[in-house]
Amino acid sequence: MKSKKTKIQKIVKIKNGIKESFEDEVVEESPLSIFLNDQKLITLLSTPCDQKFLALGFLFSEGLIKEKAEIKKLLFSSKKNEVKIFTKIMRRLPKTFLKVGTFTSGCGKGKTFEKISEGFFEKDINPLKDVLINLEFTIRADEITNLIKKFEKESSVFRSTGGVHSAALADKEKILLFKEDIGRHNAIDKILGESLVKGIPLGDKVLISSGRISSDILIKAWRGKISLIVSRSAPTSLAIELAQRLGITIVGFARGKRMNVYSYPMRVVAGS
Amino acid sequence: MKSKKTKIQKIVKIKNGIKESFEDEVVEESPLSIFLNDQKLITLLSTPCDQKFLALGFLFSEGLIKEKAEIKKLLFSSKKNEVKIFTKIMRRLPKTFLKVGTFTSGCGKGKTFEKISEGFFEKDINPLKDVLINLEFTIRADEITNLIKKFEKESSVFRSTGGVHSAALADKEKILLFKEDIGRHNAIDKILGESLVKGIPLGDKVLISSGRISSDILIKAWRGKISLIVSRSAPTSLAIELAQRLGITIVGFARGKRMNVYSYPMRVVAGS
Repeated sequence: MKSKKTKIQKIVKIKNGIKESFEDEVVEESPLSIFLNDQKLITLLSTPCDQKFLALGFLFSEGLIKEKAEIKKLLFSSKKNEVKIFTKIMRRLPKTFLKVGTFTSGCGKGKTFEKISEGFFEKDINPLKDVLINLEFTIRADEITNLIKKFEKESSVFRSTGGVHSAALADKEKILLFKEDIGRHNAIDKILGESLVKGIPLGDKVLISSGRISSDILIKAWRGKISLIVSRSAPTSLAIELAQRLGITIVGFARGKRMNVYSYPMRVVAGS
Repeated sequence: MKSKKTKIQKIVKIKNGIKESFEDEVVEESPLSIFLNDQKLITLLSTPCDQKFLALGFLFSEGLIKEKAEIKKLLFSSKKNEVKIFTKIMRRLPKTFLKVGTFTSGCGKGKTFEKISEGFFEKDINPLKDVLINLEFTIRADEITNLIKKFEKESSVFRSTGGVHSAALADKEKILLFKEDIGRHNAIDKILGESLVKGIPLGDKVLISSGRISSDILIKAWRGKISLIVSRSAPTSLAIELAQRLGITIVGFARGKRMNVYSYPMRVVAGS
């Protein structure tokens, strides 16, 4: 499922006023069209690797696929840049999906979010029944420090091109899945897609992202029933508000032995 | 037009295994719905400041408004989080706009981009007539170094919360406009919106962004007829390809006295 992630590019480097020709690596960006039961849903601009996982993860995080058993067929054409997915259950598309787009954060694609501004909680979530507050899952602060260290070690494309985001799924000791993409949402969708295919339970896992935690990322985590998100970057006010209502712990600014816990701090056990 | 950009949040800080309660500043995120001639186009998740400029810039960079004179009326409600814009000319929405969303980079909203994968250049641009290759505009490398220094000095919300992107419009000597948003696209749309309202000609200006330069950012610059984009971050392969075809110079990794020029390097004059 791997494909090329970077490309060699002739550039001009300027250093202390001196120009010089150079060959540099830049990150690949290409369109990927996603079809569900022969209906075109969306074209994502993304890094061309793990496209099948990206398509599946996108449908999962939009609530259009709930489990692997629903998938009847998947066709991927790298030439046409498209993934066609056929499902056993024809879930009704959200009313807003094909009419009004909601774009998120200038950095995302949370159509889901349309619902939030129009009463997401009231209509779509029964807090007592649906929200999985898995408070039994706890992790030590030094385990988070250790995971972040491993996560940064794996971020190879970012190191060579400076142009991508990374996301990972981890248990308390190690990174289980690691994905890269020019979009922080895409990287997370790739994680969710592979978890879906491989049947990895997410309730006792940690989702790590290189990017900011905005409200649409929270929705993705909630779909996956993930109870802990870690980032070296910051969360937004709306993401924190959602996390508090959905029972998700956000750890931000996780750098070295420091971190900030923005919601449900009881899940992070101090001590080093 | 300014509004609150950050919010105080109670958090738990962990440092070397010790937990402590703390009050921290987090960046605001809220939905903004944009209506054009009474039709709802989109809900952007963004930082609640400069919302009128954001709405205007979004319409401009989607090609739905071409100049200030077309705007008949603008209504902004900070309570409802919406901007309603009425225009003299009813430009036809792109066929794809209300049907199939194209989301970009996991980090954006380039509906425009639908067109690229389906022959943007062939259908929409006459390279000889439309593409403004303003090769007369040149800038010295040390002027870019100087602008980046000023740009980073202005990035106040980023410094306090770590959660936003910045964009600026500059001439060769100084920053003219400076905007912040959780989304790198929104920050640029705010710049384009204010430039539209103030009638600032863009052909001899520099667009500076804190974020990665992906293809959808290129389209925004092209709509504004901007010939030079500078970022401390990286461009993608598709952005470089577009820049080469549209006549736009991309300067990436502009840090201190170093920078990489990815297209039309003749516009950047060496020497310090």
